[in-house]
Amino acid sequence: MSVAGGAAWRVSHQRRIEYDLVKAPDLFDPGNPALLSIGRVRDGRRFVVVDEQIARHHGQRIDAYFAAHGISARIVRFAGGEASKTADAWLDLVRNLDAFPIHRRDEPIIAIGGGVLTDVVGFVAGSYRRSVPHIKVPTTLMGYVDASVGIKTGINFNDNKNRLGSFEPPCRVLLDHTLLRTLPRRHLLNGVCEIIKLAVIRDVALFMQLEACGAASVAAAFQDAAGGEILDRAIAGMLEELQPNLFEDELERRVDFGHTFSYGLEARHGEHLLHGEAVLLDILVSCLVARARGLLSAAETARIFGLVERLGIEPDFALLDVDLVWHSLLDRVEHRNGLQRVPLPRGLGACVFANDINRQEVASAITALNQGMAAANDRNDQH
Amino acid sequence: MSVAGGAAWRVSHQRRIEYDLVKAPDLFDPGNPALLSIGRVRDGRRFVVVDEQIARHHGQRIDAYFAAHGISARIVRFAGGEASKTADAWLDLVRNLDAFPIHRRDEPIIAIGGGVLTDVVGFVAGSYRRSVPHIKVPTTLMGYVDASVGIKTGINFNDNKNRLGSFEPPCRVLLDHTLLRTLPRRHLLNGVCEIIKLAVIRDVALFMQLEACGAASVAAAFQDAAGGEILDRAIAGMLEELQPNLFEDELERRVDFGHTFSYGLEARHGEHLLHGEAVLLDILVSCLVARARGLLSAAETARIFGLVERLGIEPDFALLDVDLVWHSLLDRVEHRNGLQRVPLPRGLGACVFANDINRQEVASAITALNQGMAAANDRNDQH
Ligand SMILES: NC(=O)c1ccc[n+]([C@@H]2O[C@H](COP(=O)([O-])OP(=O)(O)OC[C@H]3O[C@@H](n4cnc5c(N)ncnc54)[C@H](O)[C@@H]3O)[C@@H](O)[C@H]2O)c1
Ligand SMILES: NC(=O)c1ccc[n+]([C@@H]2O[C@H](COP(=O)([O-])OP(=O)(O)OC[C@H]3O[C@@H](n4cnc5c(N)ncnc54)[C@H](O)[C@@H]3O)[C@@H](O)[C@H]2O)c1
Repeated sequence: MSVAGGAAWRVSHQRRIEYDLVKAPDLFDPGNPALLSIGRVRDGRRFVVVDEQIARHHGQRIDAYFAAHGISARIVRFAGGEASKTADAWLDLVRNLDAFPIHRRDEPIIAIGGGVLTDVVGFVAGSYRRSVPHIKVPTTLMGYVDASVGIKTGINFNDNKNRLGSFEPPCRVLLDHTLLRTLPRRHLLNGVCEIIKLAVIRDVALFMQLEACGAASVAAAFQDAAGGEILDRAIAGMLEELQPNLFEDELERRVDFGHTFSYGLEARHGEHLLHGEAVLLDILVSCLVARARGLLSAAETARIFGLVERLGIEPDFALLDVDLVWHSLLDRVEHRNGLQRVPLPRGLGACVFANDINRQEVASAITALNQGMAAANDRNDQH
Repeated sequence: MSVAGGAAWRVSHQRRIEYDLVKAPDLFDPGNPALLSIGRVRDGRRFVVVDEQIARHHGQRIDAYFAAHGISARIVRFAGGEASKTADAWLDLVRNLDAFPIHRRDEPIIAIGGGVLTDVVGFVAGSYRRSVPHIKVPTTLMGYVDASVGIKTGINFNDNKNRLGSFEPPCRVLLDHTLLRTLPRRHLLNGVCEIIKLAVIRDVALFMQLEACGAASVAAAFQDAAGGEILDRAIAGMLEELQPNLFEDELERRVDFGHTFSYGLEARHGEHLLHGEAVLLDILVSCLVARARGLLSAAETARIFGLVERLGIEPDFALLDVDLVWHSLLDRVEHRNGLQRVPLPRGLGACVFANDINRQEVASAITALNQGMAAANDRNDQH
């Protein structure tokens, strides 16, 4: 509050943000204290939002867990899927919470679900009474290695992804990989796309782990040892990127690889295209732009496409409309404060940022992808 | 991200928050650079939300200001008053902004208005793309000494005041006291109630300034020198309270004096009771509770009531319903995490926190206020 440079008063404040990601397998075992390891237990109350698929598989155990600990819990079921990521769904939760209610500081909201649920419930926590604490329990691979790891919350609005939201640190993230057992294969692959992102842009060792064991780990729903190592390495890599830049003060973010053209794709095709699927399409467009610029060799490019194929992912290149993808980049320019700042791989595991991508480059990449697909289909036909 | 105490990873981050409050009289003079002192000017765009009363008085000058600087500005008029503090009004602004649009980092939103406008626009800034910068220009006394000074934003929801909102630091606060010239007397007195709050609970010198010059300063719409000193002292005192506790990590807040019983009053009577008027009713209830507990002497109590009278404020004690006021306290207990934490004056200019106020004490205080009013009315009748 010193007087400086014409200012009458200066407000200056340091805020410390700290939270742990804790491995807590078999979270709903009444003997496992993790779920209640933060906040008041005696006479405690908890507002718990649970993905309906998790409720279907574990609902009775979750009820029993809180009952066993004498916690008065309001357990709200929430439908996953991008269609739930709306202002209405968010306000419904707020109304529900308001009718419960909870103490402002020592009765954290518990969010148990995929990225849609933790994004929406995170925004509830970030906006209710100007923020109440929350715990995240990811139940999808997307949540486990990405959506639950950082502090971004959001809802879709006005036909735009995550147009409203906040930076809201959780008070803890509880990682129970056994919850992934029931996750459908398509959603496992959806999460794998974000792991591919990290591998290509920053971590060649992770790329090799995926090449060697990725397919088997997907088949094992990441319950195998090799799968566990892939998860650990993905989370650690994600955190190395996020931690120094939690509030995105730096707008050149390597983790934005795959998140430039995907926005428009999700906005238009969100009903049937998953986030990771859109990200992978973006990654492959970006790789071909990088290839054309000589940033990737032919061999490296082939290795990336080979990994996608080996993992059994079949990207739908037909969705790649040049106009849509180009306008998505233009919106990202607003988001990235006037510059493209598009991460492109430079070799496997490294990255540069481009600010001069033109429409023709994008169009060529898309044409090549569609022709490549046609060629691959021809090859398949010949078998 | 070290491994510690069972945690697999720890995220730890220091965030620096810094903003200036700058005196900038005659803000809309094209020669005054203050309004554009933050953010990109060349090819710049600004989303500007202006209170409709300010637009009525200064609209053409505001348009001319941005035109003179070659700024492409979208100027949105916004109706003041508590009825505008809704989720709908907030989402309307978001839609408007989204259609404009702005860069995420160097084209700050400019909020020009009273506490309602800066609270709602602050929440727009806090939630749009997970936060974009904003500048606050208070145009009411309430905004000048209180709502624009700190980082709280909010909208009313589900019949509760400020149930949704965020802590969102502005990038700058521009103080133009000349804008207060057109503020109606009732709204001047409304802001004065927050100054009385600070005076009673923490600053006996400010109390004496109000006794000596308050009435004249109100008459002069705070354009006089003594009024300027009152404003400066009020802002400085407010900042001393807010700065070390910007995010309300400490829930015992002296500035919550007058903000316990007022919530219920505003929720029920918001259409005709202003925020400061509700705060003053709360202050006077609290003072009588403090008097009954021996925390205030009879002389000190009389001095407080005397100041209110001298300033020409006529609180409507008939609004004080015991049930309503008591339930307001109960809701504050949730907000203050399970304890009342009600600030009570201990002498003039000092404060204690009570956690054991009972319904009977509140009822007695209200009865006394109504009888006091009746007595005062009788006295007036005898003139
Ligand atoms: N906040 C961030 O940093 C961040 C990062 C990445 C992605 N995201 C967001 O995450 C969202 C996508 O997340 P998602 O893919 O987890 O979607 P999701 O939450 O919709 O979950 C996908 C589906 O799986 C079901 N499900 C959840 N757990 C299950 C389980 N264990 N077994 C069986 N079914 C289960 C859900 O009901 C849903 O139908 C997108 O909206 C994206 O924007 C956010
Ligand atoms: N964020 C915070 O920390 C904080 C602190 C205190 C109060 N508040 C909030 O502030 C709100 C009250 O603020 P307010 O009293 O400024 O209300 P307001 O914004 O509604 O303004 C009051 C009236 O004055 C009009 N007006 C504004 N400037 C004028 C001018 N210069 N000349 C003539 N008319 C003018 C407005 O149109 C409105 O009719 C409440 O909702 C309260 O909760 C917030």
